[in-house]
Amino acid sequence: MSLELISKQKMFDGEHQRFQHASSSTHCQMTFAIYLPPQAMAGEKVPVLYWLSGLTCTDENFMQKAGVQRMAAELGIAIVAPDTSPRGDGVADDENGAYDLGLGAGFYVNATHQPWSAHYQMYDYIVKELPALIEANFNVSDKRAISGHSMGGHGALSIGLKNTDQYLSISAFSPITHPMQCPWGQKAFSAYFGADKTLWQAHDSCELIKQVAANRQLPILIDQGEADDFLAEQLQPQHFVTAAEQAGYDVTLRMQPGYDHSYFF
Amino acid sequence: MSLELISKQKMFDGEHQRFQHASSSTHCQMTFAIYLPPQAMAGEKVPVLYWLSGLTCTDENFMQKAGVQRMAAELGIAIVAPDTSPRGDGVADDENGAYDLGLGAGFYVNATHQPWSAHYQMYDYIVKELPALIEANFNVSDKRAISGHSMGGHGALSIGLKNTDQYLSISAFSPITHPMQCPWGQKAFSAYFGADKTLWQAHDSCELIKQVAANRQLPILIDQGEADDFLAEQLQPQHFVTAAEQAGYDVTLRMQPGYDHSYFF
Repeated sequence: MSLELISKQKMFDGEHQRFQHASSSTHCQMTFAIYLPPQAMAGEKVPVLYWLSGLTCTDENFMQKAGVQRMAAELGIAIVAPDTSPRGDGVADDENGAYDLGLGAGFYVNATHQPWSAHYQMYDYIVKELPALIEANFNVSDKRAISGHSMGGHGALSIGLKNTDQYLSISAFSPITHPMQCPWGQKAFSAYFGADKTLWQAHDSCELIKQVAANRQLPILIDQGEADDFLAEQLQPQHFVTAAEQAGYDVTLRMQPGYDHSYFF
Repeated sequence: MSLELISKQKMFDGEHQRFQHASSSTHCQMTFAIYLPPQAMAGEKVPVLYWLSGLTCTDENFMQKAGVQRMAAELGIAIVAPDTSPRGDGVADDENGAYDLGLGAGFYVNATHQPWSAHYQMYDYIVKELPALIEANFNVSDKRAISGHSMGGHGALSIGLKNTDQYLSISAFSPITHPMQCPWGQKAFSAYFGADKTLWQAHDSCELIKQVAANRQLPILIDQGEADDFLAEQLQPQHFVTAAEQAGYDVTLRMQPGYDHSYFF
């Protein structure tokens, strides 16, 4: 698998780079961005934070807006931001072009239903293919953390909980926490997995947290703005905290007064 | 003149706000953004940095991408980001929709030639109308600084040099410094001022710096990436430094190896 450099730019003495490559998981060209801090540019093998973005985003939104590179340069960590879905000719999309299904809305799962299953294999891409690519091609160690925003927060929680041996921490801004019980999740899971809700449980953070053995508990931190328009209907972190309590899992939820769902938070 | 709030969002314990208002300078609706740091939200009158953006930008680009609010909150300063041109029905634009003339390319001057002169009065807007509005409506002091990027860097240099009693400092990232001698400037000045180049001199930083009295020298700082694709043809900071030396004006130019013209710098 060869990486094709799209662009590179110096930033905080490190480099922001974008690449395209043929993906064996999604069977299309995938784009990702990586920020390499100055320590990595100097040859040191640095830890990696995988960042999963929210609905409608590409690899660019977070990397352009969040100002994360300043912190990453200071801490000496790389940031990897993949796209949020497969793209290109022949990749299925919602027939009405909805923002919350299809392109830009992969939900970081392996779809099992047509027409989605042909390319929407984002779980395999994020968990297996992308880290292998990153670790083979850049000055990074095998210390990985996973984080994300909104739909990507769901991705971070669910992927982290299913792969506790692969990550050192899980965190999220304003995540969807209980996709089985919110409109965004129900729409996406109906399409990607079909109508049988028992099959959805393997992808819902509130179900997954019950299955993690006590000795495999990764630290989990959630930051959630109290002025987030999507809080009550879509995000529902209280369900996740309750499920965690029932499972004896110590989760940190920080409610942030006044902050909304945007990048200004 | 009344301000209409478009949006407000909490950010670094301050607020990012956007407003629209009828402008008496440009005779159209103008949009600007202001970041009020926590100190201003608490009632303190804070200094203001006016930020002039580059070609194609609105009030949003810098505020979303530059991460300036973190620093503004730390330092206790407000940031004001106006639009880069008048907008709306009846506002002239380049007949071919070029990015470097008309909408998004006001160059922060008062156009004297038709069809531009009807609305393209950005100099008056930035120097007079906007500060009056800001100081009447927000918790700010009369301490002002002016800065900008590319075309907005030209704006900061030329406006600052023409109004040394109004600002405490001038700075710029990757500014156009000698519009009379670069393609962007020549195209805009030909349209806005006509063919007589002697009329252009009142708007060219390399000319203006010769006219500032020794006792009115504001500090001027320019940051310029060495890997900037526009450096040699359009930006030419060496002309400005030479003119400053001839005028006995102490200007600081920091050349930054490896950085380009983008927000990643």
